[in-house]
Amino acid sequence: MSDRKSMDDIMALCKRRGFIYPASEIYGGINGFWDYGPLGAQLKKNLRDAWWEDVVLLPCGGNPGATGEPVSIVPLDSCIIQNPKVWVASGHVGGFSDPMCTCRQCKKLLRADHVPDLLREAAWVKSLAEAELGATGGRDEGGEPVARSAEIGRLKQWARKAGRKLAPGAWLVRNAEHQLSPPFAAAETEYPWPALLHTVATGVAACDAPHLVSACPYCGGDLTEPRQFNLMFHSYTGAVFDEDNKVYLRPETAQGIFTNFKNVVDTMRVRVPFGIAQTGKAFRNEVTPRNFTFRSREFEQMEIEFFCHPEEARQWYAFWRDSRMAWWQAIGLKGDNLRLREHDQDELAHYAKDGAGTSDIEYRFPFTAPGFGELEGIAHRSDFDLRQHQQHSGVKLEYFDNERGEPAPNGQPKGERYLPHVIEPSAGLDRGVLAVLCEAFTVDPARPSGVIMRFHPRLAPIKAAVFPLVNKDGMPEVANTLAATLTKRFARRGGSIETDPKQSIGKRYARMDEAGCPYCFTVDGDTLKDQTVTVRDRDTGGQERIAIEQVATFLDDKLG
Amino acid sequence: MSDRKSMDDIMALCKRRGFIYPASEIYGGINGFWDYGPLGAQLKKNLRDAWWEDVVLLPCGGNPGATGEPVSIVPLDSCIIQNPKVWVASGHVGGFSDPMCTCRQCKKLLRADHVPDLLREAAWVKSLAEAELGATGGRDEGGEPVARSAEIGRLKQWARKAGRKLAPGAWLVRNAEHQLSPPFAAAETEYPWPALLHTVATGVAACDAPHLVSACPYCGGDLTEPRQFNLMFHSYTGAVFDEDNKVYLRPETAQGIFTNFKNVVDTMRVRVPFGIAQTGKAFRNEVTPRNFTFRSREFEQMEIEFFCHPEEARQWYAFWRDSRMAWWQAIGLKGDNLRLREHDQDELAHYAKDGAGTSDIEYRFPFTAPGFGELEGIAHRSDFDLRQHQQHSGVKLEYFDNERGEPAPNGQPKGERYLPHVIEPSAGLDRGVLAVLCEAFTVDPARPSGVIMRFHPRLAPIKAAVFPLVNKDGMPEVANTLAATLTKRFARRGGSIETDPKQSIGKRYARMDEAGCPYCFTVDGDTLKDQTVTVRDRDTGGQERIAIEQVATFLDDKLG
Repeated sequence: MSDRKSMDDIMALCKRRGFIYPASEIYGGINGFWDYGPLGAQLKKNLRDAWWEDVVLLPCGGNPGATGEPVSIVPLDSCIIQNPKVWVASGHVGGFSDPMCTCRQCKKLLRADHVPDLLREAAWVKSLAEAELGATGGRDEGGEPVARSAEIGRLKQWARKAGRKLAPGAWLVRNAEHQLSPPFAAAETEYPWPALLHTVATGVAACDAPHLVSACPYCGGDLTEPRQFNLMFHSYTGAVFDEDNKVYLRPETAQGIFTNFKNVVDTMRVRVPFGIAQTGKAFRNEVTPRNFTFRSREFEQMEIEFFCHPEEARQWYAFWRDSRMAWWQAIGLKGDNLRLREHDQDELAHYAKDGAGTSDIEYRFPFTAPGFGELEGIAHRSDFDLRQHQQHSGVKLEYFDNERGEPAPNGQPKGERYLPHVIEPSAGLDRGVLAVLCEAFTVDPARPSGVIMRFHPRLAPIKAAVFPLVNKDGMPEVANTLAATLTKRFARRGGSIETDPKQSIGKRYARMDEAGCPYCFTVDGDTLKDQTVTVRDRDTGGQERIAIEQVATFLDDKLG
Repeated sequence: MSDRKSMDDIMALCKRRGFIYPASEIYGGINGFWDYGPLGAQLKKNLRDAWWEDVVLLPCGGNPGATGEPVSIVPLDSCIIQNPKVWVASGHVGGFSDPMCTCRQCKKLLRADHVPDLLREAAWVKSLAEAELGATGGRDEGGEPVARSAEIGRLKQWARKAGRKLAPGAWLVRNAEHQLSPPFAAAETEYPWPALLHTVATGVAACDAPHLVSACPYCGGDLTEPRQFNLMFHSYTGAVFDEDNKVYLRPETAQGIFTNFKNVVDTMRVRVPFGIAQTGKAFRNEVTPRNFTFRSREFEQMEIEFFCHPEEARQWYAFWRDSRMAWWQAIGLKGDNLRLREHDQDELAHYAKDGAGTSDIEYRFPFTAPGFGELEGIAHRSDFDLRQHQQHSGVKLEYFDNERGEPAPNGQPKGERYLPHVIEPSAGLDRGVLAVLCEAFTVDPARPSGVIMRFHPRLAPIKAAVFPLVNKDGMPEVANTLAATLTKRFARRGGSIETDPKQSIGKRYARMDEAGCPYCFTVDGDTLKDQTVTVRDRDTGGQERIAIEQVATFLDDKLG
C-alpha cells in the first residue's frame, strides 16, 4: 500500500470494515447500486442528522441570515413517486436527458461526455498507445518520426495479439487481414490520436475530424452517434401498464418542495424569506454508473429551497454559498481537498442565466484528482420552478408580503404580491459520505493496521471502545460495566461503544483505527488497584491514564 | 365536532396544521401517496429516531435479551432497487399478489378481499337498503315480511331515482325497464342481501350462491372474477426496457438484510444471536389504497431480522413480541387502543406453520373501530429466507458457531454449522405515525381549539413555545432571547422552539394545542419586574409561574 490514497484501497477497506457493500452481492451485484453496512449505515445517518440539526433544527447555528434576522427553515418529507405532471412542469420529462452512445459491437450504453475519460483509462487504449509508439517512442535514431509503414506493421501485430484480448470489438482486431483504409495509410506520420482510435474502431480514416473520438472503452468497437436518453426511471401505478398510468421515480427531491410551497405557506406561520428542507432518496438511470458511490443510480439528497424576495436573492445566494462551505469544513473536510467554485457564465443552467450565480462545493476525490467532483451545488434558480408549477397546475403560487409595498393611508405598507426567488443549496448525501471516507482515510505505515480512519467525532459510527487488556483476572467484568455505562450515556450521540475481550490489544487497536473509533479505553491490572484506565487517542496513537470515573466526562468533552 | 375521534376531523387537522398533505396536491393529487408537511416530517423523524435509538444504539434499553446476554443489533441501509433475482428467491416475483376484481362498468380495480368492507360503506348500498326495506322496514302491520312484488316495485323506483345518481353502473339502473330475473322475482322474501346486490349489479339472480358479493362499491357495476395481480412496482435499468433489464422497487426492507447476512457476519464481529436492523422506503402497488396513510403505495418500514439458534427461536420470539409491545406503549400508545394478538394456526404464513408463532401489534384506528389494524408484525420466519437465498444464489449462508457442538479432545466445543432461525419484528413507520396522531387527537370542547394533540414529549415536533403576552413593552425582546437560548440548548432533541408575538394569547395557545406543543412559556408584565414567566401545560391547560432562569431545567426535566 503506497502512502497515497488509492480508491482501490479505500473501497477494500469499506468492504472489509462493513462501511459499504455491493448491493445484491450474493447474486453478482447490480450495476450502480450500493448497500451501506453497519458502520456505513451509522456514518450516513450521522451525516444526515448533522445536516438536519444544522439546517432544520438550529439553522446556521442560530446565527443571523443575509438580512440580519434568524434563518427560518421548516422540514418536509415528500414522496418519491408524484403525479407525473410534476415532471412535465419541471422540465424533466422533456429535457432531463444525456446524449448517449451505444457500442455497435458489445451493445454497452455510454454517456457521450464520459467517453473521453473512459478511453483515457481503458486498458486497450494504453496497450495500443504503447504498441503504436513502439520501443523507440515512434522516433528514429535521429529523433524523426518513423515511417508510416512501420507504424502500420506494429498496429497489425497489436491487433493479432494484445488487441484480440483487450479490444475484441475493434474493427482492426476483427479485420486484421485487411489493409487500414488508404487515407490513414497515406497520411503523414503523427496522425492525431483520437482519429487513430476512430480508425481502429471503424476501419474508416477520420482525417477530416481529428477531434472525433468514437471507440468503445470496453471492447474497442464502433459507437453510434449520441442520442438523447431520459434519465428518469419509470413505473406504473395500478394494474394497467400504459401511458396513462406511467409514473416516475423522482430524479431530485427539490420538486416535492416546490409543489408543497403553497401548502406550507398556507398552513405554517412562515414568512418570506424562509426555506423548506428535506432529505431523501432520488434515482437516475445513469448510463455508466461509476466511481463507487459517486455516480450511482440510487442516491440520497439533502436539499434546501430558500424562498426570498427577488431583490434579496444576491445576498441570500452569497450567504448560502459561504454558509454551506463552512458547514462541510466544520464536519471534517478541512483541507485543500475541498474547494468552492463559482460557475462561469457559459456553464449556467437556463434558469440561472441572469441570476445571482451558481457555485459548486467540490471535493478532490482520488478518482477525480487532480480534478474535483461536486458535493453540493448552490444555485439561484430565480422564480423558474414556482412559475412553471403555477403555469402547469393553474394554481396561483404568488406570495403576499404584507411588509412590502407603498404605504397605505393608514401608514401600513399596502403589501406586495410576488413569486419568490429561490436559492437552492443541494447536497449529495452519498457523495458527502464518500468524501468523509476519503478524507478520513489516512495511510500510516507505522500503525499495525497501516491505515487510520480519522472521522470527526460527531460523525464516527463507533464513539469509543472499552477493552480488557486480557480476557481474565476480573478485567472483562470491569470493561463490560464501563461499556454498558457509556452506552447508556452516549446512545443518543449516534454511535456505539464497542467492547471485545479477544485477540491481542494491538490487533484490537488496529481494528478500531480502521473503523475510525476516536478513543479506546483499556482496563488492565492497575485498574483493579487504582481505578484508572488508559485512554488511547486514535489520531496520535498516544496514551494517557485517567480515573475510570472520569471516562464519561472525558468522552462527553471530546465528542462535543 | 363530536367528542368521538372522527377520521375526517383528524385528516382535516393534519392538513390544517402541516402534518400531512396529499402528494402533488396542486396537480389533483395521486392516489395512494401522501407528503409529510413540516410538523409531520419532524414527527415521523422523531418516531424513526426513537426506534433507531431503542433498537440499534441501545437495544431494548440495555436490558438483557432472551438468553441473558445484552441484545446485539447492528444497522444496515440497503437499496430500494436490488438484483431482481432477490425477489425471485424471496417468492415475491412468483407469489406476491392479491386476488383482484375489475368493475366491468367503471373499470376500477379492487382487491377482492376489500369488496365486502367497501360495499358496507358505499353510499348506493345504504340507499338501496333503505329503499328495499321501505318505510315499514320490510314488514307488514302484522310483522310479516311484505310481498315480493312490493319489494320489486320499490327497487325499480330506486333504480329510476337515487340509483341513477349513486349507482349508474348497476344493471338494474341501466335496465330499469326490464324485469328482474325470474328466480329473483319468484324467490321467497328475505332474499339474502349479498345475493340482492349481485342481482342488482348483474340482472342475474344468485339464489344458489347467496354468499357471493359481486358489485362495484363505486358505481354498482358487475365485477369480474378475481385474478392475481403482482403488487411489486417494476422499472428498468439501462436504456432497453425489456425483461432482461426489469427491476423491482422493494416491497419490504427485510430482503436487503438477508442478502447482506453473510457480508455482516464476515466483516463485523457479530455472533449469533444478533440482529440486523434498518429503516427505509418500500412500495406496493396497492389496488385500492385507502384509509389515509394506512394503506398507501409508498411507505416506510422499520425492520429487525434477529438471527438465533433454532433451539432458541421460541425464547427470542416471546422476547421480541413482548419487547416491541412495551416499546409502542412507551412512546405513547398506552391505552386500550393498542393490543397484542397472536395469530391462529390457520392464519400463519407458509414459512411459519411449524414455528414459534406470529403475532401482530394492532391499533384501533377510527376507520377500523371496533376492529384493529396492524402496526407491527412479529414473526418466526424459521430459516426460510436464508435457505431460499442460499439455494438461489449458490452461496453458503450457514453460520459456524464455535461455542456449540460436542466437546473436542481439547475440551473446547467442536463447533456447529447451521442456518440461523429468524425472528422478525417488522413495523410500519407511517402506520406508527398515524397511530400516534390518532392517539394524540383529543377532543376537548372546553378548549378554544376544540382539540389537543397529546404527543409524548419525545415525539412532539414542537418542544416548547415562548410568547410575549403582548407585542410591545420589551416583552418580545425577552421572549426572543429565551427562545434563542432554548433553541440552542434543545436543538438536538428533535423539535423546534416556537415564538410568535402576534394575535391574542388565547389564539396562540390554541394553535399550540393543535400542534401538540407540550409547554408554552409566556413573558408578561411581571416578567420584566421579577424575572418569572408562566408555563402552561398542554394536557391540563393549567399554568404556574417559574423563574425565567429555571425554564431550561424545567424543560430538560419534562422532555426526559
